[in-house]
Amino acid sequence: MSDANIIRLHHVNINVTDLEKARHFYVEGLGMIETEADENNIYLRGLDDGNHHCLVLTKAERPSLNHIAYRVASDEDLDKLEKLFIEEGLPFRWLEKGEERGQGRAIRMQDPQGFPVEFFCEMDWAEPLIQKYYLHRGARVKRIDHANCLVRDIDLAYRWYMEKMGFMCSEYTVAGENGEYLWAAWLHRKPTVHDLALIRDAGPRYHHTGFWIDDAKTILDACDHLASIGYYANIERAPGRHGTSNAFFVYVRDPDGHRTELYTGDYFTNDPDWKPIRWHLNDPQRATFWGTLPPKSWREEAMPVQHIITGQLMEIRKPVGIKK
Amino acid sequence: MSDANIIRLHHVNINVTDLEKARHFYVEGLGMIETEADENNIYLRGLDDGNHHCLVLTKAERPSLNHIAYRVASDEDLDKLEKLFIEEGLPFRWLEKGEERGQGRAIRMQDPQGFPVEFFCEMDWAEPLIQKYYLHRGARVKRIDHANCLVRDIDLAYRWYMEKMGFMCSEYTVAGENGEYLWAAWLHRKPTVHDLALIRDAGPRYHHTGFWIDDAKTILDACDHLASIGYYANIERAPGRHGTSNAFFVYVRDPDGHRTELYTGDYFTNDPDWKPIRWHLNDPQRATFWGTLPPKSWREEAMPVQHIITGQLMEIRKPVGIKK
Amino acid sequence: MSDANIIRLHHVNINVTDLEKARHFYVEGLGMIETEADENNIYLRGLDDGNHHCLVLTKAERPSLNHIAYRVASDEDLDKLEKLFIEEGLPFRWLEKGEERGQGRAIRMQDPQGFPVEFFCEMDWAEPLIQKYYLHRGARVKRIDHANCLVRDIDLAYRWYMEKMGFMCSEYTVAGENGEYLWAAWLHRKPTVHDLALIRDAGPRYHHTGFWIDDAKTILDACDHLASIGYYANIERAPGRHGTSNAFFVYVRDPDGHRTELYTGDYFTNDPDWKPIRWHLNDPQRATFWGTLPPKSWREEAMPVQHIITGQLMEIRKPVGIKK
Amino acid sequence: MSDANIIRLHHVNINVTDLEKARHFYVEGLGMIETEADENNIYLRGLDDGNHHCLVLTKAERPSLNHIAYRVASDEDLDKLEKLFIEEGLPFRWLEKGEERGQGRAIRMQDPQGFPVEFFCEMDWAEPLIQKYYLHRGARVKRIDHANCLVRDIDLAYRWYMEKMGFMCSEYTVAGENGEYLWAAWLHRKPTVHDLALIRDAGPRYHHTGFWIDDAKTILDACDHLASIGYYANIERAPGRHGTSNAFFVYVRDPDGHRTELYTGDYFTNDPDWKPIRWHLNDPQRATFWGTLPPKSWREEAMPVQHIITGQLMEIRKPVGIKK
Repeated sequence: MSDANIIRLHHVNINVTDLEKARHFYVEGLGMIETEADENNIYLRGLDDGNHHCLVLTKAERPSLNHIAYRVASDEDLDKLEKLFIEEGLPFRWLEKGEERGQGRAIRMQDPQGFPVEFFCEMDWAEPLIQKYYLHRGARVKRIDHANCLVRDIDLAYRWYMEKMGFMCSEYTVAGENGEYLWAAWLHRKPTVHDLALIRDAGPRYHHTGFWIDDAKTILDACDHLASIGYYANIERAPGRHGTSNAFFVYVRDPDGHRTELYTGDYFTNDPDWKPIRWHLNDPQRATFWGTLPPKSWREEAMPVQHIITGQLMEIRKPVGIKK
Repeated sequence: MSDANIIRLHHVNINVTDLEKARHFYVEGLGMIETEADENNIYLRGLDDGNHHCLVLTKAERPSLNHIAYRVASDEDLDKLEKLFIEEGLPFRWLEKGEERGQGRAIRMQDPQGFPVEFFCEMDWAEPLIQKYYLHRGARVKRIDHANCLVRDIDLAYRWYMEKMGFMCSEYTVAGENGEYLWAAWLHRKPTVHDLALIRDAGPRYHHTGFWIDDAKTILDACDHLASIGYYANIERAPGRHGTSNAFFVYVRDPDGHRTELYTGDYFTNDPDWKPIRWHLNDPQRATFWGTLPPKSWREEAMPVQHIITGQLMEIRKPVGIKK
Repeated sequence: MSDANIIRLHHVNINVTDLEKARHFYVEGLGMIETEADENNIYLRGLDDGNHHCLVLTKAERPSLNHIAYRVASDEDLDKLEKLFIEEGLPFRWLEKGEERGQGRAIRMQDPQGFPVEFFCEMDWAEPLIQKYYLHRGARVKRIDHANCLVRDIDLAYRWYMEKMGFMCSEYTVAGENGEYLWAAWLHRKPTVHDLALIRDAGPRYHHTGFWIDDAKTILDACDHLASIGYYANIERAPGRHGTSNAFFVYVRDPDGHRTELYTGDYFTNDPDWKPIRWHLNDPQRATFWGTLPPKSWREEAMPVQHIITGQLMEIRKPVGIKK
Repeated sequence: MSDANIIRLHHVNINVTDLEKARHFYVEGLGMIETEADENNIYLRGLDDGNHHCLVLTKAERPSLNHIAYRVASDEDLDKLEKLFIEEGLPFRWLEKGEERGQGRAIRMQDPQGFPVEFFCEMDWAEPLIQKYYLHRGARVKRIDHANCLVRDIDLAYRWYMEKMGFMCSEYTVAGENGEYLWAAWLHRKPTVHDLALIRDAGPRYHHTGFWIDDAKTILDACDHLASIGYYANIERAPGRHGTSNAFFVYVRDPDGHRTELYTGDYFTNDPDWKPIRWHLNDPQRATFWGTLPPKSWREEAMPVQHIITGQLMEIRKPVGIKK
């Protein structure tokens, strides 16, 4: 295992086809703060954020995941990670300070399931707006919480993140008559339910980014606001409580179909004897503790992801068979 | 028009097949207070209620609506109503004081669409538990708010309640290319959005009873509570905001399928120049302001209603054709 | 008793010394909607309101209450009231349509305790913004709820409103060893806890206007917003639950010291057998159900009121002695 | 600095004079779960907790702080701490597994300011009740959050926790004309605002334990519940938002005067470039962002603390002079 100290999921960069439409959704709709923009990118942060961005919108021909990024505790952790990527034969490249605006040097790699993942330590400071309540608008996004990824081989993905990257597991879902197959896992570095969710499906595909909202009432207010400015059809999955994670949520989609979860309510997971919570795929309270099912689009649609060097979209392949 | 002064929808009596199961749902689930019970009936009230009951559960062979009841301002109003029913040739009968437990004399009639409707003035006092917060459990139902009825001829039903019974209209829905047909109407005596909703459909069928909850967060807490004691499959329609009425809601069904709306958030409707709000049936924000559709069961299932004299279930007939 | 049908407290007109400062407080702070303004007045409404104003700010040399206004059900009710005022020998004057901008003809009188009170029926329509959630800002005031008046002779004031004006009493407070003296009363025409609160004190003085807010969380959000734009010292009495009325509240003061209550959570009061709730002045849960006392300024400070004809401020006199 | 990995503040043990009264307050009032009890102790946990206790009530002659306890990541961390305590010449003693019921071996020490502090790694598992919502009562305490300690020499205390124990600082308050004196500091190991607050005052005295509540509305519900079962006079400081920490709070006191903060709403503090937020003691929004002051009792009263070996109460001394 690398002993690099990964702090948390820090930001996500998505490719969008129309920067103005995307800006309207994330700034006027979700209430995110625009730190800076250039011709091809908009850099957004949440109300709690003391750094340059937790979401980057990049102009592209078609929507996809550009990359997700974890922050590490010190610059040397990046060298430790490079060593691991070389050992494991994984594609990676270094980014100079400023190549991603506002960010120090970074290492970007393709994880074993094909996801573009970046690690960095330094980022420009930006003013946290925690107590400037008069600037809290729309969904009042506080900060990023997690990334949700569809992987074709969850056993391999799970081992990579647990054994090589030092993640811990808070909850997981099994399938099969006796629960003999892993179906999904909620993994974390920061002591919440997750920084990263892995779900067995055709992949690599990016399912959603979760942002932290203060409480359930604020999520309901967000729905009212979004609906009132015309985004009612973008509210894909009605507010509810997840069985897994116990979080209260709503799912909304941006004009390109990128999915955002407005998320609140999980718990502390960092005690040394934490026992991961086990769910069976067939548990009727797993997806929604209140019993309703997600809509078809939520279950079936997700974003392709980009290769970190070529920029091509990674081929999407069926999940590997449930093994005996 | 009768000048009887109808105060508000006051209670609903539903027929249930298993009193114990129903008690568990309404008392342990919804948190209603049991004022009294006898062999065949359970009398429940909300936390605000200063009277004997706002919901009666009556043991029966099959589930149906026994009757809904309006409270009038004075006992003489009942005589005025009798006069109207005689003039209109509608079936009715008098109930002696105590025939419905805790209630004074009452007049029960079949309305022109076939609904069993009771009027009364006096009811035994019962302690309001408004500030006994330690007794507030489950859904924390405060009081009854409205009844929702499926009627086969909404034009006639609308005229009856507006012209003969003195109801006012807060909102309505039209259908047809130019909105030329009435499809639904929200009618009130108390100055809220409604005491009675009428919807054009196969009828007479009873769709749901709405109970007032303090706020949206309490409705979410109710879902958590209901789901945690096994009623997750009873949460039929996920929490959301209605376009019509602007209320925040969730719909739950009891073990017999009787539907309850936990409802909060409407507005004052009694100004003399109130202009009813008009919706078109095709407006995507009408049913749910946030854009999602009710599930099939919510759109299609409803309860038969009882004849006030024979106790037989009223025949359910298709809605009358949209007239030119 | 006059049989004029008073619907509800409809608006309040206060005199302020600086229109711009007052506008900032009520529009940027409380989130009220400016319908119109002229050189000397700003006309504001709440988000639910379908009429021209529920609060008027009028420029004046010193702050005071200009008048409070009730809406009646029909124009003829105004003539009935005139008859009563003549019989009772109370000063009054008629206002032509438009003399108060947006309003039909009105009758303005000095009540027996010296308060300037207006009655009217017609007012210009204005768009309700109930579902334009993107315009909901600050305290998100929905509508006016009640007026709170300090009267020197509460026995007389109570009789006037109950016996002559047809108000009903929802709750009241008594003082004295055996509760033999009336100390305060909550009176209503609309079926909530009150349109008008009367409290025994040096008078006539105007204590506060209550505005309806959706729920307790929204009141907390209002505090955050107000504090963040510099009005932290204007939050006079911390959020809490009243014993009397059971409402959740916070009290804020505008730049001239006019007091606003952000208020939510009362109950239905219009059943024919409603029993007024009795509190004793010494009950530690009366003022705040949670036990804390209002600050000194809240207990001692209130606004003088204007004479309806001379515009002079009414003399403030000590309360009449507790009678045996 | 010790490189022992302290996870978080894990539990607090307070001495109470009447176990039954204390049980009623914490179980019936705050809704904590009783895991176990013996003749002299009651072991309580929050709804999220997967371990035996986060609060221990111990019978004693007079109320005081028995000890606070931090959990470490591994058993070896305890040996590292022992080494440090020896080097620093601080009094400590080992507890055998089970000496504190449900807990593995532990080391208990007197910190340089005189506070009794315990460190341990292992504790018996207990069922988390996160989704057993039907067991969520009263204040619905989820878990412990922080301890607030009054220290006579904050400079020394700050250096001990930052330099020797590896805490980080999220916010701090300075005093003096140019802010030249440290007055308070919020220190953390888990990535929230704090595990430990230090405030300059007569000490050592224990000010309060903070427990995490889901959201502000739940804190208001807690006040209603507490007030309704007779604890209205125990609500010492009304709900509000702290400037420092930005948390929403209410303070309640148990029958012995032990103070509990019901707390929600802080933010992530573990980014490597976090800049501690600086407040000046004179900032009117520091204590309450909304501008109101804490009551006198809150500012002046706090609990004595016990010596870890003798059990005697530590002498309380005036704070050291503001140094030049």
